[in-house]
Formats: sequence, structure tokens, C-alpha cells
Amino acid sequence: MERLTLHEDPRSGNCYKIKLTAALLGQPIDLRQYDIMQGDTRRPEFLETVNANGRIPVLQIGDRFLPESNAACWYLAEGSALVPDDRFDRADMLRWMFFEQYNHEPNVATLRFWLHFVGQANLTEHQRSQIVAKRAAGEDALAVMEEKLGRNDWFVANRVTIADIALYPYTHVCEAGGFRLRDYPAVCAWLRRIEALERYIPME
Amino acid sequence: MERLTLHEDPRSGNCYKIKLTAALLGQPIDLRQYDIMQGDTRRPEFLETVNANGRIPVLQIGDRFLPESNAACWYLAEGSALVPDDRFDRADMLRWMFFEQYNHEPNVATLRFWLHFVGQANLTEHQRSQIVAKRAAGEDALAVMEEKLGRNDWFVANRVTIADIALYPYTHVCEAGGFRLRDYPAVCAWLRRIEALERYIPME
Repeated sequence: MERLTLHEDPRSGNCYKIKLTAALLGQPIDLRQYDIMQGDTRRPEFLETVNANGRIPVLQIGDRFLPESNAACWYLAEGSALVPDDRFDRADMLRWMFFEQYNHEPNVATLRFWLHFVGQANLTEHQRSQIVAKRAAGEDALAVMEEKLGRNDWFVANRVTIADIALYPYTHVCEAGGFRLRDYPAVCAWLRRIEALERYIPME
Repeated sequence: MERLTLHEDPRSGNCYKIKLTAALLGQPIDLRQYDIMQGDTRRPEFLETVNANGRIPVLQIGDRFLPESNAACWYLAEGSALVPDDRFDRADMLRWMFFEQYNHEPNVATLRFWLHFVGQANLTEHQRSQIVAKRAAGEDALAVMEEKLGRNDWFVANRVTIADIALYPYTHVCEAGGFRLRDYPAVCAWLRRIEALERYIPME
């Protein structure tokens, strides 16, 4: 495989997904760090060469750039045991990864970012007005996970896949955004299963 | 392939994506229609059997249910000419599909839903307070598309893939949400390329 470089901020769960996928696969990966709080990913050089969308993570493969955390996990894991062989299971894995980006991350991760990193006192009026709705939507997402994990140990195919890796990062630190993990016991048991995987690495 | 049934609302661009993918592939698909404005997808029977997340579209494959529009497009198209053979291109296609669900749909599609179907007078105060931010974020997403389509005819691999199919539905009706397509000439040229594809079907 070509040389891999992850353009990242170590506080980002979206970046950690990719590092965790690479670790589980035993795939070495170089890191180049940015500070999103300082606007590092909105500077002209970043927008022109790394990602016109102004966001990290971006996985660099040789001289090509791949934005979107879950696309990067897919790139690393395709053909490995972290992606199921069955056609339905593969699509169902992507289903949970789209759920993560649509229903989970904008609520569970955003409240962590606002409340833990930006700080309630520094939020804009517009951000403050969204907290109640994001709290409810985040709880809905965690409830969908709890319902699934009450019936199965893993999201897809009865074994760990990148659907689990995509949902793990912001779930395991959701209390920094004011969610209560003790309300979701099946989710908690699943977090422990991921942390028991061989070659698991913690978030920094 | 097993019998396919799409659980859908014909006004939804997310549902149309799947019908357009099936049409381009010549794949027959049965339709079962719901009225999301009447809460049809929040009733207990739907939540228990079709999707615990209370959303359409859901693609039913035999007796298995696959939520998330882009996962359904992937299921239908995997192994066809609508999914690239190259590993990087396949991941890059998913990158644009995650971009669609994260940066485009929650802004471009939501404003169409609020302004065209719900109606400005019927919006909640919380919804009204988000219009300015969603307008700006939707314009940012359209600008990222314009930048890419100014350099390439298609999003990935110089030919149509399900990344184009995923981004087409809500883009081509974005003016119903107050966006101005004439600000994005490369996007407009790409819309016409999609509409010229053999077996293209319009949204109802």
C-alpha cells in the first residue's frame, strides 16, 4: 500500500476512528496534526491542497486526498475481516455508518465539542438555542443503538466491523457532552467489547 | 436477486435516489407508500417491523430491512458500472455520499421540506431560528460541488456513479428551499448530464 498520512486533530473522534481502524488492522499511518480551534483547516493552503470543504480528518494516500472519516475507514478496511463478505451485511454496515454521520455525530459529538471544548459561556446565541434539540436527537440515536445492542453483540454480522468502529469514538466520550451512559447498559457492554479487542488503542 | 420493496414517500429525495439507481440499473422494485406528513413512519408497526429509527426510505430485500438511502443505493449498485472498480475511487465515491448526508441533505433538503412542504407560517420558533445557518451551510455545500464540477464532469472516476445519484435529487429541486441554481453553472451542467442518462426517470 502507498504511504498513508492522516491529517487530523487528536481531539476529534472522527480522526480517532481512522487511527483505531488502522491499529486494529496493524496498518502504520503517519500523522499530521492541526488545531481546529485555531482555524488551521480553514486556511487557504489547507483548502487548496487537502480539502476544499475545510474539514479534517483527511486520509492522504500517496498524493491523493480522501476526506470523510467513514470513507477513510472503508478505504483502510476493505478486503479485511472488518468488512463483511456478504452483500447485505456490507450494505447494512454502511447503513450504520450513514446513521452515525446523520443521527449521531451532529448531536452527540457536537454537544461534546460545544460544552467540553468551546464552553457554554462562549457559545453563540444560535448554538445555545440548539442544545435542547440536539440533546433529544442524541438521546434518540443512543436509544436506537441500545435497542440494536440489546439483541446483538455487534451492529452487523455478529462480529466487529467498521460500523462499530465508526460509532465507538463519540459514544464512549458522550458524557463530556452531557449524555448519561448509565441509561444505556447494552451500549456500555458493547463499549467494553470494543476495548477488549486485540490491538485496540485508546483515544488520546 | 430477492424481491425488492421500497418503503417510501414519493416527495422524498432520499427515496427518489433509490428509485433512480434501480431505474438506471434496469432493476424492478415494488413500492409501498407512506405519508411522512401524517406521521406514518412513527407508528408502532412501522417502528417494530420496518425501521426502529422511524424514517424512510427503507429497502426491503426479501424479509430483511435496510434503512439509509445511500446504503440502499450501494446495495443495488455494488458490482455494477455505477460503482468504480478502483479501491481509491470506491472510497472516494463513499466520501461524496457521506458529504451528501452530512453537509448537503440537512441543509439543502431540510430547507425545501420546511419552506415548500411545511410552509414558513407553520414552522416552529426553533426551526425559524435555524434558517439563516442552514442557508449558509447549504450554499457552502453547493459551492464545494461547484468547485469539483468545474474541474470534472462527474464526482468520481470520470463517469456516473452512485455519488452523482446521491447528490442529484435534492440539488435539482433546491430552488424549492430558496437556493438559486443560476449561482452554480457547473452544477447546472452536471444536472443536465444526469438527465441525459439512458433510463433516467424524473422525480414524481
